[in-house]
This record gives sequence, C-alpha cells and structure tokens, in this order.
Amino acid sequence: MTNFQEKTTSTEEIFQGSVISLQVDTVTLPNGNESKRELVKHPGAVAVIAQTSEDKLILVKQFRKALEKEILEIPAGKIDLGEEPIKTAERELREETGYTADSLSLLSSFYTSPGFADEIIYIYEATGLTRGEAQPDEDEFVEIVEADLVTAKRYAENHLIHDAKTMYALMYLELKQAKRQS
Amino acid sequence: MTNFQEKTTSTEEIFQGSVISLQVDTVTLPNGNESKRELVKHPGAVAVIAQTSEDKLILVKQFRKALEKEILEIPAGKIDLGEEPIKTAERELREETGYTADSLSLLSSFYTSPGFADEIIYIYEATGLTRGEAQPDEDEFVEIVEADLVTAKRYAENHLIHDAKTMYALMYLELKQAKRQS
Repeated sequence: MTNFQEKTTSTEEIFQGSVISLQVDTVTLPNGNESKRELVKHPGAVAVIAQTSEDKLILVKQFRKALEKEILEIPAGKIDLGEEPIKTAERELREETGYTADSLSLLSSFYTSPGFADEIIYIYEATGLTRGEAQPDEDEFVEIVEADLVTAKRYAENHLIHDAKTMYALMYLELKQAKRQS
Repeated sequence: MTNFQEKTTSTEEIFQGSVISLQVDTVTLPNGNESKRELVKHPGAVAVIAQTSEDKLILVKQFRKALEKEILEIPAGKIDLGEEPIKTAERELREETGYTADSLSLLSSFYTSPGFADEIIYIYEATGLTRGEAQPDEDEFVEIVEADLVTAKRYAENHLIHDAKTMYALMYLELKQAKRQS
C-alpha cells in the first residue's frame, strides 16, 4: 500500500462565507518538499432523481451566478448543519418542486471536485411521488420542468443540462432503461 | 422563457491562488432584493476514460488533501492557460500514466459544482493505447491501478473511487456494456 499522505504544517484561514470557506494549507509532500493546497470547505449537498408517474424526470431551472446562465438540474440543496442527508433530500424536493415521495433511497455519493473542495453530493432516488405546492425560499427563483429521458438527453446535448449530478442522473436512468430492455 | 438573471452590483476579490480564485459578488435578485454570491473561479479540467487492450480501466491513485485520503480517479488535470482541452487530455494521460492514445474523442462535459464554482470538466475517451513511461511532475505522487469494470465497481462501493468524473466514467462503461449486450 502506497502512502502519499501530505502532512499539514500550517493552515491559513482566508475566508468564511455563508456557503463555503477557504483555507490554504502548507503541506509536506512525500518527498519532503513543501507545497500549498488551496482548499474549499462545503457542508455537502443532496440531489434527488425523481420521476413522475409518466416517467418524466423532474428538473429545476435556475440561474447559476458562477456560470452566468440558467441551467436545468435535478432538485438539490445544501445539507443544513446536523441534518441527516435523507431529510435534506425530502426537504429540498418538497421546497423546490412541491413533490413528496413515498420513499427515498440512497443511490450513490461522490465528491464533486476533489482537487480543491470537500463538497460531497448524496444522490437519492425518489419513488411514489405526490404533487403539492412548491415553497421556494423568498430569495430562490426556480421553475419546474418535467422531461422524458429523450427530451432530457436533448437538453444535455444543448447544454441546458450541464452539471455533474444531473448528467449522472441521465446516465443512471439510461442504464436503468437499458437493463430493463435486455 | 423565464429570466432569473442576477445582476452584479459589485465584486469583491477575496483570493487569487495558483489553482483557484475566490470573489464575492453582490447581486440584485429578480425580486429586487440584494444577495451575496461566493464564487470560486477555476481554469477548467479534463479527464480521460482509457481502457487497456484487456478492457481494464486506467486509474490513478493519489492523495487528495481536500478529502484527507487517497482515492482512485481516472487520469485528469487542469487546463493550462490557452491550452486546447484535447491537448490537456493527451498531456495528462501521458504524464500521469505513460500511455499515449491513437485517438481521443470528447464524450461529454459538465460543471462540477454550479452552486459556487465555474469549474468545467471535459471527459474524453481514449482509444488505441500504447504504454510508455509515466512522467509525473516532481511534486506529483501517483500510482497507476488498472481495473476491470467489476473490480472498479467494487472500488466505488468501497469508496476508493468516490469522485464525480470517475463515477460518471463507470456509469458510461456500464451503459456501453449494456448496449453491446442488448
């Protein structure tokens, strides 16, 4: 077993925001050299793959300042301090889309950007949806779009869908369909 | 068409690092309220899905300071200023693994964390590999691991594989296999 561990010799706190924080660690590399690591801390997030009874994927359109454009994403949100990820999934699905699910099962999780950030996303699949009224936060502007898989894949080709978790969701649904057909 | 655009009224530069930079934008929301957006700028990256002639996926084991652990990822790296993404793909594959490819085709791209970062990853598939000598940077510590899909999926279950691009790669290969069999 290799051991490439980098030992932290000092940490400089750069920024503490409401979503992320940033620090620069000075580390000792396995060869004894010194290097710097720019590290973004994030509380983690959940995302929900939810399909209506007509097999339409529920997407949320929102403006993303980091990209300076609107994109379509599966419902998602940050984990509140101390919140169980499945509770975040329930809450975000209800708030952003109005839907509630009979059950939410954890499909997978992944780190989005391990080179500089510790953000992890837990991906849930919702089953047994009931439609209700969306309750977005006062300062949250979202629009629900429901799309069958063919349409969603076209959105991805056109880069209306263009983020890791939603691209992963499309691949998951396509694989599920391929397995059903084989 | 909705327009949820957020108008920037001011930008505060917080940090300029060698990998990322951080700024906080003050924005006007569609309802006229003011809000802050914490934004990480990143040069973008590429990742390469490369399989040996024995259908083994080429993975790179490296320590990720942000996660404080070693994980296995498909070969990847940041785009140098002005570099064509396909050139980054060629370069990173060669430097990290020693392999060169007859051809590299762009499969997909995605933003990793649209909520706070503009990092985009271009995913290439390599075909026609020739093995050579890896040439990692002096301060880059990586080990090559070659795994068939069954083994790679086990690594994902055990969270040795645990990042967005590599999870996407596994899903892509599984889908490709399912389509071949149907």
